[in-house]
Formats: sequence, C-alpha cells, structure tokens
Amino acid sequence: MSKRHRGGSPPVEAVAGNGLLDRRALLGRGVVFAGAMGTGVGTSLTSAAAEPLKDDPWSLEMGSVIPAYQVPSRFEKDVIRTRSNPDNDFRNSHARTPHHLLQGTITPNGLFFTISHSGLPDIDPGQHKLVIHGLVKQPLVYTVESLSRYPMVTRMHFVECSGNSAPMFSNEPLQVTAQALHGLASNAEWTGVLLSTLLEETGIDPKAKWLLAEGADSLALHRSVPVKKALDDAMIALYQNGERIQPGNGYPMRLLLPGYQGNMNIKHVRRIKLIDQPAMSFYESKTYSQILPDGKMWLFHFTQEVKSFISHPSFGHSLKGPGFYEISGIAYSGNGRISKVMVSADAGKSWAQAALQEPVHPKAFTRFRMPWRWDGQPAVLQSRAWDEGGNVQPLRAEFVAMRGQTEKPVRSPLAFPNQHYNSITSWGIDNNGGIKHVYA
Amino acid sequence: MSKRHRGGSPPVEAVAGNGLLDRRALLGRGVVFAGAMGTGVGTSLTSAAAEPLKDDPWSLEMGSVIPAYQVPSRFEKDVIRTRSNPDNDFRNSHARTPHHLLQGTITPNGLFFTISHSGLPDIDPGQHKLVIHGLVKQPLVYTVESLSRYPMVTRMHFVECSGNSAPMFSNEPLQVTAQALHGLASNAEWTGVLLSTLLEETGIDPKAKWLLAEGADSLALHRSVPVKKALDDAMIALYQNGERIQPGNGYPMRLLLPGYQGNMNIKHVRRIKLIDQPAMSFYESKTYSQILPDGKMWLFHFTQEVKSFISHPSFGHSLKGPGFYEISGIAYSGNGRISKVMVSADAGKSWAQAALQEPVHPKAFTRFRMPWRWDGQPAVLQSRAWDEGGNVQPLRAEFVAMRGQTEKPVRSPLAFPNQHYNSITSWGIDNNGGIKHVYA
Repeated sequence: MSKRHRGGSPPVEAVAGNGLLDRRALLGRGVVFAGAMGTGVGTSLTSAAAEPLKDDPWSLEMGSVIPAYQVPSRFEKDVIRTRSNPDNDFRNSHARTPHHLLQGTITPNGLFFTISHSGLPDIDPGQHKLVIHGLVKQPLVYTVESLSRYPMVTRMHFVECSGNSAPMFSNEPLQVTAQALHGLASNAEWTGVLLSTLLEETGIDPKAKWLLAEGADSLALHRSVPVKKALDDAMIALYQNGERIQPGNGYPMRLLLPGYQGNMNIKHVRRIKLIDQPAMSFYESKTYSQILPDGKMWLFHFTQEVKSFISHPSFGHSLKGPGFYEISGIAYSGNGRISKVMVSADAGKSWAQAALQEPVHPKAFTRFRMPWRWDGQPAVLQSRAWDEGGNVQPLRAEFVAMRGQTEKPVRSPLAFPNQHYNSITSWGIDNNGGIKHVYA
Repeated sequence: MSKRHRGGSPPVEAVAGNGLLDRRALLGRGVVFAGAMGTGVGTSLTSAAAEPLKDDPWSLEMGSVIPAYQVPSRFEKDVIRTRSNPDNDFRNSHARTPHHLLQGTITPNGLFFTISHSGLPDIDPGQHKLVIHGLVKQPLVYTVESLSRYPMVTRMHFVECSGNSAPMFSNEPLQVTAQALHGLASNAEWTGVLLSTLLEETGIDPKAKWLLAEGADSLALHRSVPVKKALDDAMIALYQNGERIQPGNGYPMRLLLPGYQGNMNIKHVRRIKLIDQPAMSFYESKTYSQILPDGKMWLFHFTQEVKSFISHPSFGHSLKGPGFYEISGIAYSGNGRISKVMVSADAGKSWAQAALQEPVHPKAFTRFRMPWRWDGQPAVLQSRAWDEGGNVQPLRAEFVAMRGQTEKPVRSPLAFPNQHYNSITSWGIDNNGGIKHVYA
C-alpha cells in the first residue's frame, strides 16, 4: 500500500471524533481524495508496467455458456442465507440475509430472508385462490390470473421479523455478524394490487373492524389486521424485484403490510375474512406478543420501530491498515421515511450526520454513508437513525431499562424479551483492524 | 365471470378512444372499480361457501426445506432468458429479459439480459485487477478489496444493447414477444465507485480526451469513452441489486455508463487507459456503428434514445373477455428522466396520458400504467414516451423514413439497419382477445 501524500488540495474537515469526515467528502472532487485518500488504497505502478497487461487464465480461453437463469459466480458461494433448520425438522426455520456482504438498498431475491413455520409449500399458481369474505357486501374469489387485470402499484418496502435482532437482548455482546444479528429484515420492490382496490369491489360492512388473513401453508398461519391498515397501504403482492414472488416469500401472492411486523405479512395468502374483533390467533396472542419486564405484554404492537446498523465495516471484516474507509449501513422505519442518521466513531461521545442514498422511500431500507479516516487507534462505530415521525433509536442503556435483557444463551424464546429490538449496534475496532461486537 | 353492475358510483370518465380511462381511475376509490370493474373479474361466491375453505394438497403436508440461495418456484420454469447460442458455439451469445412476464421496474438478477462475445469468463475476484494508466499523473491499480474502501454510490439505471429491438426494422411485423423484440434492455440498482473518484486520485493529463476501457474476457473487448462522460456519472459497479455483479453482467466489476449503449459498459473491466483520441476498436468502428440509408454512418453515437413499449398486455398474452384491464409497460431514456408517456388504444388516433410509477429515476426504467375498459372490439395498443430533454419517440413512419427498414428475415446484421431502434411498438387486439404484433 502506497503512502502518497500529494499536495494541492486542502485536507478534508473532520466533523466528529476519531476521524469522521464531513459527508461532502463523499461527493466533492479536488477536496477529498487527495486529502482523505492521501494514504491511498490504490497501488501505485509505472504506466509502462501496465503495457502489455499480463493475461490471467480466464482471459486466455473461451468462457462458459450463458445460463437461462443467471446465478452468482462460484466465488460467491459463501454469500448465502444462514439457516436455522437446514434438515427441515418439524419446527420453524429461518434463513437470514447476509447484510455484511451486500451493498445498496435492494435485497436480491436469492438472499431475501425467509421464516417458515412449516416449510415451503409447493403451490400451483393456476389452482391457488384468494377468497375475500366475512363482513363484506359481496364475497369474491381471485386468482393470479384475474388479479393480473387489476390496477397495480410498485413500491419499495422492507419486511422485518419482529424477532429480528433478538440476539441483541443478550447481556453480553455475541461475536457474530450483522447477518446473525439483523438478518431477518430485507428490502424489495413489490408489485401487486392494493388491498383497498379489492375491498372497494367486495364492499365492507360497517361492522368490520379487523380482517383475518390466512395462508395456504399447512399451518394455515393467520393473523388479525386492522381494517384501517388494509385501506391504507396494504397490498396483495404478486411480484418481488420484478419477478414472481419467491416460494419463501409467499408465492404466488402475499399480504404485504408495509412497516408491520413480518409475521403479519401473510404468505401464500388464501383468505381474507372481515371480522368485528381480532381472532386472537396463536401468533398474535403468543409468539409475537412481547412480555415486558413489568409482566405486561405488548399485544397488537405492529409497527417495526426506527432502526439502523452499520454493515460496512462490521464483524467478519477487518481493516487493512490506517487511511480512508467508507462506513455504511442500513436504516429503516415502519413509520415512514428515514430523516437522519448520525454516526459515531468514538462510542457515542461525538456524532456526525451521514449522507442518505436518495431517493429515500417510506418504510424501506435507506443506505447511509459516512467518510472516515482511521488513524489506526481503537474506535467504536455506531449509527443512530431518526424517522420523519420524529422517532429515534433509543440508546442501549435506555432500551435495556425499558425492555430488559437476558442472560446468554437465550433458552426459551417465549419467556424472555426477544421482540422489537431497535437500539444501537456497536462495532469495536482494535489497533490491528480487528472488529468485535461490543456494547457501548 | 360475473357480470355485476352495481349502482352508487358514477362511471369513470373515458379520456381517449376505445376505452382508455382517466389515470385517476388507478388511484381513486368509490369511482373506478364499481364502474370500470362493473364487468368484474373477481368471481362471486356466497360467504358461506368459503367456510371451511377446501384445502389444496400443499396445505395438507409439511413444506420443503428452505434453500440457502432462493430460486423461483418450479411453476415459473418458463420465466427465463431466451438464448441465441445455448450450445456456446464460438460466436456471440444473447440472453433476453422476459419483459412480458415481469412487472415493476427492477429486472431481477437471474433475468437481467446478457450479451457475450466470448462466453462467461470464470474470474477469481481475489486476482482480478483494474489498472488506470495512460495520460494520468499517477497510474494506479485497484482490486475488489481496495475498491471496497472508497466512497460508493447506489443508483438505478438501465443498460440496453444498441441492437435491442433490431427485429423492429423488419418491414413486416414479427409475431414474437416483447422479450424477443426488446429483451436486450434491463434495469438494476447498481452500487460502486464513481470513476471520477478514481480519476481524481490518478490525476488526468490535460491532453487526455478519451479513455479506452478493456475487459478481462478472452476478446479483451474494448471501447473508447469520452473523458467528459467518465467525469459525469460513470461508475465502476461492484454490486447489482444488492449482491455482487452477476457473471454475465461483468463480475467482479464493470464500467457502467448510464444511458450509453450497452457494449460500452465494459464488463470484467481490467484496464482504463486515458488517451488523446479514440482507439477505433472493432466494436466502435464496425458492429455498433449504424449505417444510414444515405450511406453515412453513426459513429460514436452513444446515447440510447427515449423509448417505451407496452409489456401488459402484449404478444403471448390473451384477453379473457371484455371489461377492465390495466395496460402497463416500460419507458426509459439515456438522456435522463421520463417526463410523459401517452397511450393509445385506437392505433394513434387518440392518446391519453399514463400514470408514471414514482419515483422516476434518471436513465432508468419507469413503469407506466393506463386503465382500460375493453369493449370486446378490435383495438391497437401503443405507447409513446417523452424525456425531460424534450425528446420524443418517433412514430413508425417518421422513423422508417429516417432510418430505413429491412426485408425479413434479416440475414446480415452488419449490412442492414439494426441499431438504436426507438420507435413505437403496436399490439393489435382481435375480437377474441388474441394479440398480434402489428405496424400501425
């Protein structure tokens, strides 16, 4: 690595402790890189050394056939979802998104997280039906084909399991990746028919206050949803990032409830029944109802709160010597748009505002970026997000006081707090560039 | 199919011939669907008939294991890229995006189009290097790992082969899908390092007016690019829809030149050499230079012009009886944002303005939508797009007069016009709901 220090451009202004730089450093020319990149990461060579370029083996032979459906390079074989139940034993099953290996805002369909409570049903889309009935004026049945005629919308939204980040309730920081901590949230471009469009057609009995949505999986997983949400931005989603929804994400159609906890976004949805009071189903009255330290319970607590975490750099990476790095991560809120993300490199003593990747979509992943010049000394990286509703990620001490924590390892997911974690994630950097998960 | 005509809501206003409805029909409640959907597409049933729901076979058994990398349902096996060279003979190879089977604006990575002139190289990203040299102040070498430290940007952009839509030059309309006609264009969220960031670091000799970008494929495919474009929005892209770029799209890094013809977006880029005049490489002086009817040639004609086509409904679909349908399709321009799309259902006699899916990104696919009540009579569907630069898709007669056409089948791609087609696509509907490709 070269150690060039070129003159000419003034050094970039530090805006917070431990080397955080003004976010204009991401954009400007003639300001940043001669300065911030002074300890350059590109390797120097003489121009003559480039001519002729030495050919690598793959440049010397005809390449392989183009497949009909493209898949990642074999060198990306470790960029996969980690699975909690790879033998498909008779219990639930999680597959987590590898955030520390991805960039941008979209989760590619191959890596979108899945939780299933009874495996992936093998549904024939030509046979699948969605019934809307109960307290409606006219019950109707829809198929994939009939829905294809309706007005559609395309929207960017995250889905997050309310149990995402449950390992953060541990009273000691687990030494695992952002995938293991936060991999039960993903983001896609969804296309489908607004549920309000279909309910306009069926009509709604004024007595209807809730709807019961039920999937075609073998558990007939079902949840109660307020009619108000159904008439707001709920969607019967048919497409995910342009193609039909993946089997693990609800093929051939799912209820999408932007910003609401993942389990409510009923996959393989086959029935929406309008009812006058909630059904008190297993998943709403037990698994996804959070017991609080005072013994009370969060029942029908639907919205996923404002949250962020740094994905680069994070556990599983290491820094290769002092110099410029971009810190980046993901922020999102079930309440709407992210309005601000602050980043700290000194464990919260000082903060600087990160750049947000435009356009910022409501209830969707927003990539934030912060330029940083690491001086080779220990540092603790944190991010903290605000949403347009004025909500902010609580600091860890505040959060633990309010919501409790557990001894590790967590034995029973029902007896301990494990839902709706939205506090800070901290990455500790040591002077060798090693990265640990820390509480700070 | 039920034939309900419910009272209450007034009928939706028709805004152009043959049943085009005001685009507010896509949004409003209590206006549209009781009216436009009067010949409803949902199937009626009694509420009692829904209780209990009959279980399909997949609802009666434990589902299958969740894979580490998700793939589409087996029922989507025909949603694939059609390939021109599936045996990987020693010639170029095309794999086309199935636009008529997709929705939204993002092309999923599995279905993003590929053209390769020498197959897919099997590149080890740990060995791959990008050299920037020539008329620079300091030649530098970058690796995937070193680039990961630089400031990145995430942007939505299409890539289109300048030979996309070549079948539209035929003097008779070919009876093929939108995939066969327009499948050499796709759209993704790209993340990478702006080339301007790297050139800031290498410095640029004032004599440099062009750069030669070269790939690591066995042809060392190379093109000349104006330095001005390199300093505008050119990117060394590392990620495509969140994950590493696909092998067919340039793994492990490609030059992305938003809005410029696809072939210039050098895949597997290994060298950028700054030079004082264009290199006159094979692909810029021959294949991708269009011969005009007057014998002159479009040399260095880079920008992909404003364009649109209807994907739903289109050839390969059929209409299932009169009533409401949503017409939708894709518009894009290498000049910037799409500003307007007009749709006609009567072969261009009258037009109505389509709704554009927000947000509209520059140099990216924009989904347009138009509500339509088909009366069961013959119709011809067309779309026509404008961009923010004031450019408009030429009508077919205008286009053919200017650019020529060919007798089908086109025998030699070099001797006939086959580049930069951006005129109208027309779908003829017959009174049985059959759909043909027509010129109108």
